Amino acid sequence: MTGKIRIGIVGYGNLGKGAEKAVAQNPDFELVKIFIGRDPNQLEAMKEYVGKIDFMLLCIGSSVDLPIQGPRVAELFNTVDTFDTHAKVPEYFASMDEAARRSGKLAMIATGWDPGLFSVLRVLMGAALPEGKTNTFWGWGVSQGHGEAIKRVPGVQIARSYTVPVGSTLEKARGGDRQDFTTRQMHTRDCYVVLQDGADPEQVRQAIVSLPNYFAPYDTTVTFIDMDTFEREHNTLPHGGFVIRSGSTGEGSDQLMEFQVRLASNPEFTASVMLSYCRAASRLYGEGRRGAITAFDVPVGYLALSDMPELRKSIL
Amino acid sequence: MTGKIRIGIVGYGNLGKGAEKAVAQNPDFELVKIFIGRDPNQLEAMKEYVGKIDFMLLCIGSSVDLPIQGPRVAELFNTVDTFDTHAKVPEYFASMDEAARRSGKLAMIATGWDPGLFSVLRVLMGAALPEGKTNTFWGWGVSQGHGEAIKRVPGVQIARSYTVPVGSTLEKARGGDRQDFTTRQMHTRDCYVVLQDGADPEQVRQAIVSLPNYFAPYDTTVTFIDMDTFEREHNTLPHGGFVIRSGSTGEGSDQLMEFQVRLASNPEFTASVMLSYCRAASRLYGEGRRGAITAFDVPVGYLALSDMPELRKSIL
Repeated sequence: MTGKIRIGIVGYGNLGKGAEKAVAQNPDFELVKIFIGRDPNQLEAMKEYVGKIDFMLLCIGSSVDLPIQGPRVAELFNTVDTFDTHAKVPEYFASMDEAARRSGKLAMIATGWDPGLFSVLRVLMGAALPEGKTNTFWGWGVSQGHGEAIKRVPGVQIARSYTVPVGSTLEKARGGDRQDFTTRQMHTRDCYVVLQDGADPEQVRQAIVSLPNYFAPYDTTVTFIDMDTFEREHNTLPHGGFVIRSGSTGEGSDQLMEFQVRLASNPEFTASVMLSYCRAASRLYGEGRRGAITAFDVPVGYLALSDMPELRKSIL
Repeated sequence: MTGKIRIGIVGYGNLGKGAEKAVAQNPDFELVKIFIGRDPNQLEAMKEYVGKIDFMLLCIGSSVDLPIQGPRVAELFNTVDTFDTHAKVPEYFASMDEAARRSGKLAMIATGWDPGLFSVLRVLMGAALPEGKTNTFWGWGVSQGHGEAIKRVPGVQIARSYTVPVGSTLEKARGGDRQDFTTRQMHTRDCYVVLQDGADPEQVRQAIVSLPNYFAPYDTTVTFIDMDTFEREHNTLPHGGFVIRSGSTGEGSDQLMEFQVRLASNPEFTASVMLSYCRAASRLYGEGRRGAITAFDVPVGYLALSDMPELRKSIL
């Protein structure tokens, strides 16, 4: 008994590797075991760790893996994940809640920075200024999903897509403009593509910019580069974003709040936030909380290593 | 029975007036009664409202009034206040906790934006990036305490003091500089003073800039103006501030978070935040929570008018 929170990591891509590094930065956690990816025997391997792992960090994808694996793991362990398909949160919440209640476990879903920190900020801001408008901007940063979408275009060898907030719209939001901005007004997409031998650049460019959902609703720039340049200049996963709320109090006093992140490594930051929510989940579990919860259920002080008296004294 | 949270406001200065306006912006609150200031019979008057008011918003000063009046009101009602003497929080917490536990009430202390929102951000940021440094800057905005300190200088009729964050230090903090900045490096003070007839400007200036604690540790500018200019250009209470945390994850990935407020009316914003914490306190009270609490004890979703399923669906 070390008194530490014993961690298992499920999935060892960028996020899982980030989680491993985050555990090393937090003295109240101990890494017990990493379970690699989609191995169908994974769940059997996990069963041997019941009683030896307190929380499983589910570092697997939201589109395919989490909806299936999440509830299965929640039948055995407390879990924390970074489920980020906004539209499917209620459905995923319900399935994790059911699994965790059946097993008497806690399942903390949708942590990270968006959903997660940004969601918390949207609630704090909306509550602080009930009359107003919240805008979320993402970037500058790599959208891995968009890079993968480009890769499926015939003629493309590999690609990187950056999400870029439109500066003039950002300034409008900061200036208190409360109109509903369109998708095109808020972000542009900036793509770097390595072609396969013999592919026609103009044909590829057209195919990319007209991809429905991914690029058609945006002003998209496509730049063709060689593999050396790609590997040298597009080998990290930076990201960032802004939550801005402008509102009014009294007889029209303008009030503005803004939260911003600028991240050299999106997966490492996501994992670090995830771990702070794992700490909070561990405290809530200790108090008897069961089923699925989100960042909205967390008393803010539970995220910190320090206890409440120390926080009141040194941080309040 | 309206189902609304029934509010009493204690104190009717800038904050109390802000609270009155905030109640009008939030459909789940109902203003029952405003208790004016320091009237010694106030407490007797309040007793008639036991059972008719759910929460008292204590809109009175932290230095003299709250430490005395706070526990007395907490013997009768649930309370929310904006106690902001950082160094005395543990002592004040203890006295409110004792009073509220004795009466079976809830006392939410130290809400507003700092302490309050900024405190919450400091915890969120510190937990998300355990290796790093947090800096808080205040301004540009009016420091009422500093204006009052100047007014006590002989020869001064009236004065306004603005707190100004030093731009170059702000940029250093944003750039990841993790040194401990000095008081002088972080803020300057910009004062506008109306002299009494016959006062010597240079003598007054010297007396102001050398005032211990208030101005001596800062680079301070003093500008003398006439009463007309004062009333025309210094008649509002704007404020603002920044919480910035730079940190590292993994093998030195730079990560940055920043929260910023820019407020046309400090008291109206403070009151608006206070009211969101009153909503949360009301929910916690309904769950059986008693004694003193702070923003750190609040599950973020309790601040919102919407319930958890709605928040998960629309804001997560």
